[in-house]
Amino acid sequence: MRGAILTIGSEILSGAVADTNAAWLTGRLGEEGLDVVARLTLGDDPQAIEDGVRTWLRRVDLLVLTGGLGATPDDRTRPSVARALGRTLVLHEPSAASIRRKLSGRGAASADESPALLPMGAEALSNPVGLAPGFLVEDGESCLLAVPGVPAEMRGILDEHLGRILERWADRPRLQWRSLHTCGVPETRVAQLVAPHIPAPIRVSYLPRCGIVEIRLGIASSSPEPSAELAAAAAAAGEALGDAVFGWDGETLEEVVGRLLVRSSKTLGVAESLTGGRVGSAITAVPGSSRYFLGGVVAYGNRAKEDLLGVPADLLKRHGAVSSRVARSMAEGARRVFGVDVGLSTTGIAGPAGGTEDKPVGLVYFAVAEEGRTVAVRRTFRGERGMIVERSTATALDLLRRSLSGRLDEDVESGGPATGIDLA
Amino acid sequence: MRGAILTIGSEILSGAVADTNAAWLTGRLGEEGLDVVARLTLGDDPQAIEDGVRTWLRRVDLLVLTGGLGATPDDRTRPSVARALGRTLVLHEPSAASIRRKLSGRGAASADESPALLPMGAEALSNPVGLAPGFLVEDGESCLLAVPGVPAEMRGILDEHLGRILERWADRPRLQWRSLHTCGVPETRVAQLVAPHIPAPIRVSYLPRCGIVEIRLGIASSSPEPSAELAAAAAAAGEALGDAVFGWDGETLEEVVGRLLVRSSKTLGVAESLTGGRVGSAITAVPGSSRYFLGGVVAYGNRAKEDLLGVPADLLKRHGAVSSRVARSMAEGARRVFGVDVGLSTTGIAGPAGGTEDKPVGLVYFAVAEEGRTVAVRRTFRGERGMIVERSTATALDLLRRSLSGRLDEDVESGGPATGIDLA
Repeated sequence: MRGAILTIGSEILSGAVADTNAAWLTGRLGEEGLDVVARLTLGDDPQAIEDGVRTWLRRVDLLVLTGGLGATPDDRTRPSVARALGRTLVLHEPSAASIRRKLSGRGAASADESPALLPMGAEALSNPVGLAPGFLVEDGESCLLAVPGVPAEMRGILDEHLGRILERWADRPRLQWRSLHTCGVPETRVAQLVAPHIPAPIRVSYLPRCGIVEIRLGIASSSPEPSAELAAAAAAAGEALGDAVFGWDGETLEEVVGRLLVRSSKTLGVAESLTGGRVGSAITAVPGSSRYFLGGVVAYGNRAKEDLLGVPADLLKRHGAVSSRVARSMAEGARRVFGVDVGLSTTGIAGPAGGTEDKPVGLVYFAVAEEGRTVAVRRTFRGERGMIVERSTATALDLLRRSLSGRLDEDVESGGPATGIDLA
Repeated sequence: MRGAILTIGSEILSGAVADTNAAWLTGRLGEEGLDVVARLTLGDDPQAIEDGVRTWLRRVDLLVLTGGLGATPDDRTRPSVARALGRTLVLHEPSAASIRRKLSGRGAASADESPALLPMGAEALSNPVGLAPGFLVEDGESCLLAVPGVPAEMRGILDEHLGRILERWADRPRLQWRSLHTCGVPETRVAQLVAPHIPAPIRVSYLPRCGIVEIRLGIASSSPEPSAELAAAAAAAGEALGDAVFGWDGETLEEVVGRLLVRSSKTLGVAESLTGGRVGSAITAVPGSSRYFLGGVVAYGNRAKEDLLGVPADLLKRHGAVSSRVARSMAEGARRVFGVDVGLSTTGIAGPAGGTEDKPVGLVYFAVAEEGRTVAVRRTFRGERGMIVERSTATALDLLRRSLSGRLDEDVESGGPATGIDLA
């Protein structure tokens, strides 16, 4: 079943705002098993919108259009869609009544009913959030689904109506997806390990992002049951990647780490230098993280490392702030000052300045301190300041995951990364 | 001068990866003054690519295409472009030689020269980063510019060649832009204040994002000189918005705050609760921030607030952790423990759980402590956990900005926001 997405809005094309609707819609339609073949963004140009609808509607089963359904003069979507379909616009009385009711509830004196003008024969889709209804209209073998561009309204209408709308294609093959998420293994190596285990009908793509690689496996299936072939391929890929896999189907590192902490009834404190608060910020993005995360110290200066974490001045002087010894001392300090079971630390050089021949930009030390055992790890990352911080954050969380699952066998003295995979 | 962007890659349409190339290109072409009228994303479908090129090339002056120029079998761009143009592919010998040279430098035994196959008559664009050259080809009045999809290669080629390429349209009107950035004023109020000052030829758009609103003003101009009309409108908009404006033309709050700290030779420490490290992470995203940022405490639990920041247990008990008194005490604690000039704090309820009738989800207190003066401010934000944290982070930085510029006249007792603008 083929789909396409048309988003309308000059503000996207002026380069200042991200097309979050297109990204959300792509994900949502993908979850429903549609094969999205195109995504088009246009400004508020009536002729371009008319051409876009005409071109793409006949190429797909479902064209989802968002934006420009409001009452302001630059909202040109409804007339353009009507022209593309060769239909007139007619007032949909129940939608107009709903607009009048909602506006009078807000104390408005008069109501602009133009959002209730729909192409002849269209089905109105009630908007649980705002004024303008969405609509669904058939054209030959294809369907056009139009929703407002306000993200909450778009999502509200689709959450309410999309499942029912898709039932008309229930017998069509849909795409099923599985995802594996790894940390610390380069994309090329991930592909080498996974590719031999993926039989032909399964699509595979590798999506790298700051130290994390997502492996997406997809298969077209006419059955609503989960594909056994897909499950077998996912299991084989998981086997090949071993403990580099931290999660499945959209899980984040911070969710996985949170679950491990809850399961083992352990508490966590962090001591961050180059990550500047990013590790704490990732951990606290998980609702309920206050159950296991007691706090963090962002020890950006040496004095903070000494005063707040108890790192000995002598250690800082002899080894420098970016060293395995200081990383260890920071993690142990976090454990002590927060009175927690596990301390996690980062210290490194984010750049662009501050690198030396011995300690280049991108050199980062991490440590995890648990009762009776502290492990330090060294990595060197390439890229810009923001990328180095993001990679360091993912790596810190992944080392914590490995430690909590009893699989952090590496220490800085032993060399290579703790992936359990030969990286040569 | 009109432009369009065509990005190619099934991984974008599978919903798992953001189209960062399209976003970057939109911004880059906008900076160069192009009016981007469409953005299209297609999978690796040769017929769709051919149709897309044919359709959009004749509608714009410059079509920029990215993705699918590599040597792997799913890279279908070059043959499809050649068919759309009605030209054959010919081997561009200097590019092939460059590929052989680069690969032998990497110790490869043989070289796949297919990335050097270009449509007849195309100009090769050297790739400073990778193997595959980009190319530029004229078709009637229009030009097609094709570059690889690897972000660093795309950017490398465009940074090297785009300025020269655009010279052929030097006499065409281009769009000029100015941006103002505000914090703390709702989008609707921003629009009410700005709109009366913007004369007709100037386009204006309002781009809200988690408490920050960007006001973008654009004008088409045939002159390379900055438009006086645009400058006057921007100045008038700035006047109308007063000290709600924190920056111009892409400046971030953390950059502005950093500059104010450097200028006044002041140092900063932060004490975060609900923001969980996000404030520190924003501040340290600025290169050189270690000059003024000495550190932070993420005091997620009450014990951390007592032990690390010296918040009296009694205060926590009487007022609760989410209170103006505790916010004050945290900011003063940050000032003391880091030995800095300015302490900044956040404490609130990010949700989804933890709210009460008295203290609902979204209630946040902030405080800024400078020598002899501590100011606390209360806000209530709506939205999901992540949005509340982002809004809180922006608000904390904006309050710091106001305090550093001597314009934080508000205190929690006085009520309304410190925007200097009547929000009624």
